[in-house]
Amino acid sequence: MKKFVNDPQEVVTETVQGLAALYHQTLVNIPGTTVIVREDAPVKDKVGLVSGGGSGHEPLHAGYVGKGMLDAAVAGAVFTSPTPDQILTAITSVDGGKGVLLIIKNYAGDVMNFKLAEQLAEAQGIEVAHVIVNDDVAIPARENRRGVAGTILVHKIAGAKAESGASLGDVKAVAERVIQNVGSMGVALSSCINPAVGKPIFNLGEKEMEIGIGIHGEAGIERSELQSADSIAEQLYRRISRDLSLKRGEEVAMIVNGMGGTPLMELDVVGRKVCQLLELDGVQRFRAIAGNFVTSLEMAGFSLSLLRVDEEMKQLLLAPQSTPAFPNLV
Amino acid sequence: MKKFVNDPQEVVTETVQGLAALYHQTLVNIPGTTVIVREDAPVKDKVGLVSGGGSGHEPLHAGYVGKGMLDAAVAGAVFTSPTPDQILTAITSVDGGKGVLLIIKNYAGDVMNFKLAEQLAEAQGIEVAHVIVNDDVAIPARENRRGVAGTILVHKIAGAKAESGASLGDVKAVAERVIQNVGSMGVALSSCINPAVGKPIFNLGEKEMEIGIGIHGEAGIERSELQSADSIAEQLYRRISRDLSLKRGEEVAMIVNGMGGTPLMELDVVGRKVCQLLELDGVQRFRAIAGNFVTSLEMAGFSLSLLRVDEEMKQLLLAPQSTPAFPNLV
Repeated sequence: MKKFVNDPQEVVTETVQGLAALYHQTLVNIPGTTVIVREDAPVKDKVGLVSGGGSGHEPLHAGYVGKGMLDAAVAGAVFTSPTPDQILTAITSVDGGKGVLLIIKNYAGDVMNFKLAEQLAEAQGIEVAHVIVNDDVAIPARENRRGVAGTILVHKIAGAKAESGASLGDVKAVAERVIQNVGSMGVALSSCINPAVGKPIFNLGEKEMEIGIGIHGEAGIERSELQSADSIAEQLYRRISRDLSLKRGEEVAMIVNGMGGTPLMELDVVGRKVCQLLELDGVQRFRAIAGNFVTSLEMAGFSLSLLRVDEEMKQLLLAPQSTPAFPNLV
Repeated sequence: MKKFVNDPQEVVTETVQGLAALYHQTLVNIPGTTVIVREDAPVKDKVGLVSGGGSGHEPLHAGYVGKGMLDAAVAGAVFTSPTPDQILTAITSVDGGKGVLLIIKNYAGDVMNFKLAEQLAEAQGIEVAHVIVNDDVAIPARENRRGVAGTILVHKIAGAKAESGASLGDVKAVAERVIQNVGSMGVALSSCINPAVGKPIFNLGEKEMEIGIGIHGEAGIERSELQSADSIAEQLYRRISRDLSLKRGEEVAMIVNGMGGTPLMELDVVGRKVCQLLELDGVQRFRAIAGNFVTSLEMAGFSLSLLRVDEEMKQLLLAPQSTPAFPNLV
């Protein structure tokens, strides 16, 4: 294993401390925790937004903390849910009196621990609600779907809604609407190495790819010989488009998300094909971004996310935000 | 070689087309070229900014085209200078009557071809000037230094100055001031694969790293056994700090730049150490960013850049910009 680390057991702590040091104007690490909050938290009379999960997906989650997006992010160990006490710390740190919304990715450990923290916070008199992101269309049954790159669209849109002064109910409602209208699917060419473990979490052959893979290396739909970028892009696009029942005349926001080890030029090549397909299908492209937004350490791979947008979502996507990782849409 | 490509010979063309399709609200690809321009180019009575170079460093250069930064970027083949005719197309496309500044990285091919294009444009009556970025302190002699990640600070600061309506002379002057005050140095753990060639451009042993490496895999200062993140960070920091003669009480902007294949968490771990060292040395951190800004395809590695900032540079760094890749500083 070749990585830029010190003690592999300390990598999450040092990551969080590093992020807070680098972005010290806008982010604060609550001492003794892996919680990152906005430097002005709690913001009075604003719904607080908390997300989090296992580390290894950077810039998710703390890279999306800041004005217009999350108020706090909680980092667990690599690919492991954060503990309820850390989540509780995040909730109490960002409660500005208008309630707190938890944005949870659909993994058993995350759901359990975030819900437990929700109960603990409610016992302290804080109003808390949650939404569960499950955008990975590789899994047939909706309730079993993993939360992947579509999560950052929930962060952005709910974050902008909260920043506007909306109520907890209204912020939750728009987050739910994003979740119902977003679909994602990924593909990998290689595995990644958890620094605390030191070896690949799965193996792929020298000419193999795996379609439908999860962001922790969970098995996908099929392994096959590597195909052309256009062919792979089309398979992901068709699957998501069918799942969302995308229709001519509708409009989408789009993410071509790198898993961490794939050059940006390959993401642009993939994006070119998806844009062509959307055009052929008569679906408008509202805004699109390509880059490493929800990664799996150094995995070579990418995912495609499409969100059917309505007028409110479009306004909220263009609202100003300042976070380390979300691009400046115009 | 496992990559998301179609025809490896077409990867640059498809990258540029993909970028323009994804960001169609703000970017345009001039048909039949690998030139990307702002959709509102040429902007009347504004100095036009043109940069470019070999592909494979994405998001450099086209990811920095947009309001407040570059007016045009020209992409050559992977790790190969663009041709003078393509650079000339970029210049003529962004000339708004106030002259054009070329921002060239210090590589023989780039310098030759950009200067040739400059002469061709001047023969057409366009006022053109250039600056040459040479921030890689791994090379002792200043005139031989390569242009690396510090280039994007030239793009940002000169871009903001041009956007303010400044003259060609004034935009060039601030770009030169950035170049005189920025230093960078890189380290690699692995090579990268040019898609048109299909094999690694160099080899590193299973426990080896190379300090001082260039963004095309040019040889560095030394190969050694992999050291801790903190130790590597300190070596790069000391070398840059000494080169810039950084003094207590001065202020810097900082980039921890991923080479393409290194997880963001490792960049944050490195950033943590550099922030600690700056603090010990009494150097203020004005703004810092960590991410993949100037890459070498999927190379595992990173570079550190430090820019001694003055009041004007600070204002220009915080000026608004909208490009695919430069983060929203606040």
